[in-house]
This record gives sequence, structure tokens and C-alpha cells, in this order.
Amino acid sequence: MAINRNSLRGKLFIIIFGANTKRGRLFDVFLLWFILISILVVCLESVPKIRDQYESVFFYLETFFTIIFTVEYFLRIYSHPKPLKYLLSFYGIIDLLSIIPYYLTYFSPASHYLITIRILRLLRVFRILKLSSFVHHAQVLKSALASSLQKITVFMLFIVALVLIIGTIMYVVEGEENGFTSIPQSIYWAIVTITTVGYGDLTPQTSLGQVISSIVMIMGYAIIAVPTGIVTVEMSRSQPPVASKVDQAECLSCGKSMPVNANFCSNCGHPLKE
Amino acid sequence: MAINRNSLRGKLFIIIFGANTKRGRLFDVFLLWFILISILVVCLESVPKIRDQYESVFFYLETFFTIIFTVEYFLRIYSHPKPLKYLLSFYGIIDLLSIIPYYLTYFSPASHYLITIRILRLLRVFRILKLSSFVHHAQVLKSALASSLQKITVFMLFIVALVLIIGTIMYVVEGEENGFTSIPQSIYWAIVTITTVGYGDLTPQTSLGQVISSIVMIMGYAIIAVPTGIVTVEMSRSQPPVASKVDQAECLSCGKSMPVNANFCSNCGHPLKE
Amino acid sequence: MAINRNSLRGKLFIIIFGANTKRGRLFDVFLLWFILISILVVCLESVPKIRDQYESVFFYLETFFTIIFTVEYFLRIYSHPKPLKYLLSFYGIIDLLSIIPYYLTYFSPASHYLITIRILRLLRVFRILKLSSFVHHAQVLKSALASSLQKITVFMLFIVALVLIIGTIMYVVEGEENGFTSIPQSIYWAIVTITTVGYGDLTPQTSLGQVISSIVMIMGYAIIAVPTGIVTVEMSRSQPPVASKVDQAECLSCGKSMPVNANFCSNCGHPLKE
Amino acid sequence: MAINRNSLRGKLFIIIFGANTKRGRLFDVFLLWFILISILVVCLESVPKIRDQYESVFFYLETFFTIIFTVEYFLRIYSHPKPLKYLLSFYGIIDLLSIIPYYLTYFSPASHYLITIRILRLLRVFRILKLSSFVHHAQVLKSALASSLQKITVFMLFIVALVLIIGTIMYVVEGEENGFTSIPQSIYWAIVTITTVGYGDLTPQTSLGQVISSIVMIMGYAIIAVPTGIVTVEMSRSQPPVASKVDQAECLSCGKSMPVNANFCSNCGHPLKE
Repeated sequence: MAINRNSLRGKLFIIIFGANTKRGRLFDVFLLWFILISILVVCLESVPKIRDQYESVFFYLETFFTIIFTVEYFLRIYSHPKPLKYLLSFYGIIDLLSIIPYYLTYFSPASHYLITIRILRLLRVFRILKLSSFVHHAQVLKSALASSLQKITVFMLFIVALVLIIGTIMYVVEGEENGFTSIPQSIYWAIVTITTVGYGDLTPQTSLGQVISSIVMIMGYAIIAVPTGIVTVEMSRSQPPVASKVDQAECLSCGKSMPVNANFCSNCGHPLKE
Repeated sequence: MAINRNSLRGKLFIIIFGANTKRGRLFDVFLLWFILISILVVCLESVPKIRDQYESVFFYLETFFTIIFTVEYFLRIYSHPKPLKYLLSFYGIIDLLSIIPYYLTYFSPASHYLITIRILRLLRVFRILKLSSFVHHAQVLKSALASSLQKITVFMLFIVALVLIIGTIMYVVEGEENGFTSIPQSIYWAIVTITTVGYGDLTPQTSLGQVISSIVMIMGYAIIAVPTGIVTVEMSRSQPPVASKVDQAECLSCGKSMPVNANFCSNCGHPLKE
Repeated sequence: MAINRNSLRGKLFIIIFGANTKRGRLFDVFLLWFILISILVVCLESVPKIRDQYESVFFYLETFFTIIFTVEYFLRIYSHPKPLKYLLSFYGIIDLLSIIPYYLTYFSPASHYLITIRILRLLRVFRILKLSSFVHHAQVLKSALASSLQKITVFMLFIVALVLIIGTIMYVVEGEENGFTSIPQSIYWAIVTITTVGYGDLTPQTSLGQVISSIVMIMGYAIIAVPTGIVTVEMSRSQPPVASKVDQAECLSCGKSMPVNANFCSNCGHPLKE
Repeated sequence: MAINRNSLRGKLFIIIFGANTKRGRLFDVFLLWFILISILVVCLESVPKIRDQYESVFFYLETFFTIIFTVEYFLRIYSHPKPLKYLLSFYGIIDLLSIIPYYLTYFSPASHYLITIRILRLLRVFRILKLSSFVHHAQVLKSALASSLQKITVFMLFIVALVLIIGTIMYVVEGEENGFTSIPQSIYWAIVTITTVGYGDLTPQTSLGQVISSIVMIMGYAIIAVPTGIVTVEMSRSQPPVASKVDQAECLSCGKSMPVNANFCSNCGHPLKE
């Protein structure tokens, strides 16, 4: 970072990208509110009744938010010591995607659905995790999930294979006349069932189908225990175990705390007991 | 508490607000039954058939309960050493809210829905947690939930963001012709799906929609493991570990604590039993 | 037990009530199969199509099973050292309930539904838990559930209060025109939703109702973690902790296995180390 | 294995059945892709629209995959030292089942559903678990599930008994006019409800039925905690606890193992580092 900390670029960089100074935190909080309100506007605009009634209001609001976010975008490019790195970063792309749909509507005003890409600006909300009160907890959750990822993957492979087989069996048993019109459709039913969602848009009609789905449901009931077990075990590991609450006493020689039952300091070799 | 313990106010205070004396506990149990029965009456009154048939019975019952609770309310104000503190406390407001709807119906008899506010008197049921047999367990649960609150909050933020993005994607994919009439409606669907509730009032109709919702369901299946993991870990921490539960007795010779069923000290060999 | 072990009554008692002898186990296994088949018959008989087609077959099967179970019932009374104690015990009542419906149909042949009481004979299946391979595991599960019962009760009280309040709010918000015809009906909806069952027979129609139920669902998602946490913690406690997998060495004097780090046998005081 | 490792059969055996050599792994990965694509083809073929449009394409694809898998099948028989053992093994039967339906359609071309047996070739996907990155995790999951199998079985027996009793009660309470046409049908409802799937194809209509199902749902809510608890406890046991993960080195003086980052032995004070 070859930028002078006291130059305008340097100051802007600390405010916009940092969260440790008072101004930097204020900037983040303000931006967060702008993002949340702009998302609310996108949501409300999608409701047909509200859209028709306040069409012009939404246009002005959208223009306002787009100007704000465009200014912010260029300030980020300007102040970042390596603008290209920011442009190609995850947040750089998200920031761009949350402003371009507005400008594109000038070229093809029919692009109604394009405008909903703006919802991606929601991803910027995760910048909130920089706020100190969340960093620690998000870190613990993240590391627990990361270390259980491989086990969860093996488990998911198993679920996918199970769901394919159950789906095929139900396709053969129930048949097209009961709504199980194809294997993918039956797999969709199997997923809806084994995850205990149970929409009820597809339900077994034959006796055999009901027996099979009863077995599937009871299996799903036991299977749901597996990811829970994996995550719980990883979480209880990624935290200091209770055992470390064993009474500790400090070595008088080097000051490091040792378990009280140690005879010598494991750091400096000083005898801990008479 | 400047009130004399032997004055009428002092005695009333101990009976009404305390739960440690025999009379205090009796008062709580009686009140609890009155509250439960009055709630049952409110529930039954809301059933159209029953309301029409026993209209006058309900009126008399309601008058009876309101008188009881009004007397109790004024006794609480009278006996409390700092009446204003009680009036503005959580239970003070709940107590008031459970009697005023009845009196308000004299002024505007049409306020049918107002009367249902009386259900808030249910909140007074939590006074039962003062009873000694529940205090300990409620405390353990409360502290476990309190210490996992921050992690749960971070997790909930993540769920809300996820649900917003999934909702928007499904709004674009399924469109208004399949019931996903707006982004808020699609978000409602995403919540119904990811929490595995699955009403089935809104279901994906297109193939792509079914593929996406299959992924959402399997994700929801894995995600449900996270709050469970958080709470389980916090609970296992907030309790003394197993080992400390076995009764221990100290060796009279070397002073080390041994399980009571040991015959000899495992440290110095001293006999522990005659 | 003043009965001579070698008398007929004594031998019968050991076979019928015991599960430790070869004959006793054989008796239990036979009985179990009779019970399971008789339950299957009750289930099949309830299917209208099957009942109409094989009406007489079912009558003969039912008569056969009732005779078997009646003989068993009287043998149990005869062989038990304290017949009255058996008659009034849980299994004594269940055994009676599984045979009387048949005899009662002679007096009032219209008692169609009475016959289904016979399904209660299913409860006798739990006698299987006497079989040695299950006793241990059933015991562990039972003790874990028993010790978590109080915490679960406090939690359930909380759920009931929550469900009452949510039900009332939805009754006011949605109103009778959207199917929430009474508070009990709305409470039913709240239970269906918070337990993530989600039948979809009652769903929120208004926007406010959908917002409230979204919050309820996300709450239910977090709340489900609580009983899981309670039971998991109790289960991990009711089992020998991992620590007991510490290397063990047998005392050469009394043969009991001791942790290798013990200096003296805690059973006989024999020195374990030179 | 009496086959010479350098003969053609020996080399083929190492490539086809092994996963430790570079070629063996390449063979597994190629085969995996063939299996996955052939499953995708079976799924797509089951969709009526797609089947009708690309009928000949599917025929050629199916012929292609069957030839590949047939060649693979005979190579496996040829290269295996004990061909009969392979033929009768789990994967041997699966491999056969995934090719014969194609040949059978030549004899009875109407056997439409027979062709779906090919989906069983999915089971071959589990060969992926041989790949080193998954072996460990699959092993941990498997051993945790295996050791909790007996407890889960006891629990499942309990659920089955519960579901039978609840089903019968609801059959009596709701009756045939509300869709609970038989006890098996009611048991199906009970399973759908207690596993929180909740299709909504059968729902209680009477007040008493709704009260009973509310109780069932709340019970199901608490019961789901049991398998989760079982699996979590077994998983946390089947893994080495955190503490033992730190690298340990033995003290050269007293032989006690110490964490590698300790400078002195905490037992005898001997320096552990130069």
C-alpha cells in the first residue's frame, strides 16, 4: 500500500474500506441502512398493486439509490491502492452488479427481470460481519462448518444416491397416473419427503406407495440426526473444551500458567512443587 | 422495603409477591388456576357455535374473572412497597392489559377483537416459573439460550439474507403465473421451504424451479444442524461435567478425593472403609 | 415369592414371566409373533375392501387369537405369586383390554369401534424389551429421557404459552374469513407451523399474516434446537464418558481393572506399582 | 491371489479393482463419469416430452453405455483372481443388474418399467468412497452409525408402536367420513405427522382430532431429539478428543509423553529441547 495515509486517497481508503476508525464505522452503518432500504424498495416494487400505484415514486427512489451506489463505487475504485484487485474481488463484482441493471434499462426498457438483479446488492450486507461484535461468532461458526464440510459432503453424496433410488422406485410403483410423471419428478418428491418439507403437491396414492413413503419418512427422521451430529461435534471441538477449565497455577519463574498437577513448568523447567 | 413485615401491607406483600411461604405458594397456585380457566373461557368464546349458544354464560364468567383480577391488581398496587415500580414493570402492564378490555367494551361495545387482548393474561402464567421445582431448570435453559444468542443472531442474519436471495431467484424463475406474484411472496415461500414447514400453498411448477427448490431443501436440511449444534454445545457447557457428579470422599491419609465406592485410596493405598 | 420353584405354578411362572431361561425366551418370542400377527389382522380388517371380502376369515382369526390370549391371561393369573398385583399392573390391564372387546361384541354386536381397542395389545410388544439384547439400550434411552424430563416440561410449558399467544394474534390478524375461525383453530395452526409439520390446510392469506407466520417459522427453526440440546446433553452424561477409555490394567491381587496411573488398587489396596 | 502381478490379468486387476495406482484412479474416475452420465440419461428418458422427441438418441446412448458396462463387467470377471467371488459379491450383482435390462428388452420389448432397473447402477457410485479423500470420513460416519444402530433400533420399535396406537385412535376419532378410511391409512397419517413431513393430504377435521394431532405434533417435536442425541453422542465418542490431537513427544528421561511445544518435561523436569 504505497498510498500516503494522510493524502485524500489514504483517508478515503481508511473510511471506506476500514471499520476500525470512528468515521469508518459510521460510513459502514450509513451504507448498511442505504442497502437495506434499497432492498426493501426492490421487494415492494415487485408487488403488482404497489408498483402500479407508486410507479413514479419507485423510479425516483431507484435513481437516488443508484446515484449513491455509483458514487460509492467510483470512490472505492479511486481510493483503493490496487483498483484492479478491488474490481475483480467478490465485493467489487457485487457492487457493479447492483448498479448496472438501472443503466441497462435505458437501452432496453423491457428488461423487467433484469432489474431484480439489484437484489444481489443484498450480498453487500455481509460487510456487516466486519463489525467487531459479529466477527468472533461468525468466525467460530465458519470454522465449525468448514471442518465438517468434508463429512457433510460424504453425507450429501449418500443422500443424493438414496433420493435417486427412492425416486425411481416410486416412479415405478406409483406411475404416471398418480402424478409421478417422470424420474426427475419422483426425485423431487423424494427430496420433499426425506427433508420433511412435505408440500403435499405430490402424494402417494397406492397402498404400496404409502408403505414405501412411510419407510422413507422414518428413515428421513433418523437421517436428519447425521448432519446435526456432525456439526455439533465439530462445534464442541472448535471451542475451548471444558477440560481447560482445570485449575491452573502460574509458574513463578516464567509466569506461564500450568495445570496444578504438573511437577515442573513445561516452559522453563522450574520445579512447581516443593 | 420500608414496610413493616407484620403490618397488613407487609403480610399481603409476602403472600402476593412471594412464593416461599405456604400461604404465598397457595396464592400462586390459586391464581394460576384462575388464569388458566379464564384463558380457556376466552378460547371457547372465540368458537362461533359455542359463543352463540352460551352468550350470557360467557358474559357472567368474564365479569367474574375481571372482578377477581381487578381486586388482585389493586391489592398488588396497595401491598407493593414501590407501587409505581410495579405499575411500570412487565407483569404490572400485563396485569392491567388483562382487565381493561372488559371495561372498554362498556364504552365501545363493538370492539370485538379488543376482547382478545385478554389472552395476554396468559403471560402471567410465567409466574409459575417462580415455583421452586421449575426455577433451576428454567435458569439452565435461559442461560444456555442467552449465551448462544449472539451466535444464533449471526446465523439468523445469514438465513434472512439467504431467504431474500432464494426468494428473488424463484420470483424470476417461476414468475407471477405460478403463484410467485411478488418478491415478498417468494420470500414467504423460501421461509416455508427452508424451515421444512412446507404448507404446499405455493409450490414450484417449472422444472428449473423444482431443481432450485430441491437444492434449497437439501441446504435447509444441513442448515438446521447449525442452531442445534450451537444450543447443544452451550448447554453441555453450562452444566457441571459428569465426573463431578459421583459422590466423592476424601482419603484420610493423603487427602485426595476418591469415589465413595472405592475400598482403598488409589494414591497412597490407605484403606477407605472399616 | 412363596411358590415352590419345582411345582407346576413355579415352572409356569419362570416360563411366562421370566426371560432368562431357554423356555422363557421361547415363550416370549412365540407370544410376540402372535401379538404382531393379531395386530396385522386388526389393521387389515379395518380396510373396507379387505373386510368385506374376507369377513368370515377375520372372524375365525379373531376367535383364534382371543382364545390364545385368554388362555395366556388365565395362566398368568394362575402362575403369578400375587395374582392381584398382576391384575392391577400395567401389563395386567393391557392384557385384559386386548381380550374383552371380543366378548363384549356378543352383547352389543354394533360396537364396531370397540373392537379397535384390541390394538392396545400392541402395548404388550414392549415386553420385547425384556429380551437381553435390548434391555441395556432401552435403559440408557429411558434414563436419559427421564433425567431430561423436567427440562423438557419447562420447555413444553413455554411452547404451549407461545402457541396460545401466536394463535390469538393470528386469529385477530387473519380473521374468520381466511379459515382462522376460532382461537382453538388458530392454536392448532400455530402448532402445525411451529413444529414444522405444515399440513397446509390452514395458511395465512393476508400479507401481515404471512409476515407473522414467517417469523413464527424461523422461531420454530431455532426452538427445535432446544429439546435436541437437552436430550443430547443428558445422553452424553448418562453414558460412561470417553475418559473411561483410559488404559486400564488389572490388579494382580483382586483382578479388578484399575486406571494405569493408580498407585494402589482401589478395591483391595494391593500396590499396583513397584 | 495366485495371479502374477506382471501378467495381463494381474495388471488389469490392479487397474480395475485397485485405486492406489495412478492408472487405477484414472479408471475409477472415468467409470464414475460414465455411470453419472448414464444415470442422467435414464432420468431424462423418463420425462415423456423428452423421450418422445429424442427417442432414437436415447436408444443409441443406451446401447453405447451398455456396451461399455458389458465390456467392463467381463474384464472384471476375467481379471479377478476368484471370479465367482466377484460374481456373487454386492457390486458383482449390481454390475449385472445394470446391464441385463437392456438385453431383456430384445425379448419382451414391452418391458418399459424393467428398463428403470438400470438406475441401480447408481449404487456403483459408492465405489467413489474408495477414493482416498472420502475413505476416512465415510469410515467415521459408518462406525458412528453402526455403534448407534442398536439404540436407534430400540427407538424405532418405540416409534412404530406409538404410530400404530396413534393411528388407531385417529381412525376411531375421525372415522371414514374424514378420510381416515382404515387403520393402515391412519397409521400413514400418523407417520406423516410425527416425522413433521405433513403433506396435508389427510388432515384432522374434528375438534377432538385436532387436539390429538396437536399433542402428536408436540410429541414428535420432542421425539426428534432422541435419534439426534444418539448419533451426536456416538459421533463425539468415535473421534479422538481434541486434546489428543496435539503432537506429542516422549520425554527421554522419564518416558512420559509431552506436547511437542513443551520445553521441559512437566513430570521430571528434564529439558526436552536442546
